[in-house]
Amino acid sequence: MRYGVLGTGEVGRTLGGRLVELGHEVWLGSRTRENPAAREWAAAAGAGADAGTFAEAAAFGEVVVNAVGGRVALAALEAAGPENLGGKVLVDVSNPLAFEEGELRLSPVESDSVGEQIQRAFPHARVVKSLNTVNCRVMVDPARVPGEHQVFVCGDDEGAKEQVTALLGEFGWPQERVLDLGDIRAARAVEMWLPLWVGLMQKFGHADFNLELRRAR
Amino acid sequence: MRYGVLGTGEVGRTLGGRLVELGHEVWLGSRTRENPAAREWAAAAGAGADAGTFAEAAAFGEVVVNAVGGRVALAALEAAGPENLGGKVLVDVSNPLAFEEGELRLSPVESDSVGEQIQRAFPHARVVKSLNTVNCRVMVDPARVPGEHQVFVCGDDEGAKEQVTALLGEFGWPQERVLDLGDIRAARAVEMWLPLWVGLMQKFGHADFNLELRRAR
Repeated sequence: MRYGVLGTGEVGRTLGGRLVELGHEVWLGSRTRENPAAREWAAAAGAGADAGTFAEAAAFGEVVVNAVGGRVALAALEAAGPENLGGKVLVDVSNPLAFEEGELRLSPVESDSVGEQIQRAFPHARVVKSLNTVNCRVMVDPARVPGEHQVFVCGDDEGAKEQVTALLGEFGWPQERVLDLGDIRAARAVEMWLPLWVGLMQKFGHADFNLELRRAR
Repeated sequence: MRYGVLGTGEVGRTLGGRLVELGHEVWLGSRTRENPAAREWAAAAGAGADAGTFAEAAAFGEVVVNAVGGRVALAALEAAGPENLGGKVLVDVSNPLAFEEGELRLSPVESDSVGEQIQRAFPHARVVKSLNTVNCRVMVDPARVPGEHQVFVCGDDEGAKEQVTALLGEFGWPQERVLDLGDIRAARAVEMWLPLWVGLMQKFGHADFNLELRRAR
């Protein structure tokens, strides 16, 4: 499969790298064609890896992954171009976090989410929110954390969620550990998990953790 | 120990009932002295249980539990009276949820929390946020849910957190399953868990679940 991964930060490079290892072709996209981090990533990732602009990466991908920060997601996707997103599965793994004066802030929050913003702005993309509840190393290697811990998917397109669930399976998340929360409005709930995630990361001193939902029945 | 439990809804009655079973004396507080739900609760709970106004319940308690909804917590505590809260451990188990036009809303959110509001409004109370992340039946009987699932405490007063951790132990939460998230600002994070909790409750069809944090080390 051909993937366009938008974002050259740790999340984009980690997801892109694992996709290449799994035998996929990946273009990593950034604002500029000659982004040094992206070029270095492509050279290290080897065959199947390339780097270019957001638009080039999105045009290349049969599936597009939004791995830029949630607060700049719409700008990156605007640069990618609606013509390169229409009809495609668009996996949004972002969180709209920022630290302002030492405090964690989340925006949008509560009555909206990045997942919904993207789906509204690109109505022909098949947006699935997923993986934003774990660190990127856990995203692509859930066995870093013991237990039957889970990830979530939500989105308006059932077929797109099935496709993303299959991709999660390639990363090592068995289907029974992928919890479908319904339509894209559930992105609010998973994005609002982040303040607790950050608090726990600070408490534990590392990011190799996740939640396992335990239930009576 | 003498407890004043503010709120005659399911949360207050469940917490109050379990405290009485554990041998404590409990006054359930509400806006009016002759609240039928509170009177019925006191009659059913038996010796050690009584009911009265918010102020009477708070005056009675060596420890006060806020079990009214998060959006009316300040009004209830104002009615309880700062003179009945000063110096006491005040356990806030509330969430500022409401459903508006079919959508879950949370207020305050993100840059503030009910826990912080209460601590600011009653600076002489020793506020501990806890238990708001689980259903009230799980609060007092964690064995309803399998696994080593956890609850959180946060607050500015270390001694108050220790006292609440001991109370949680009486409810069946071993100390190692009580995660201290730091000062009262962490109430934001645990209150923001609620949208995901509600989504999971809708998905599972019941409230007998909780999260178990799994970590590599």
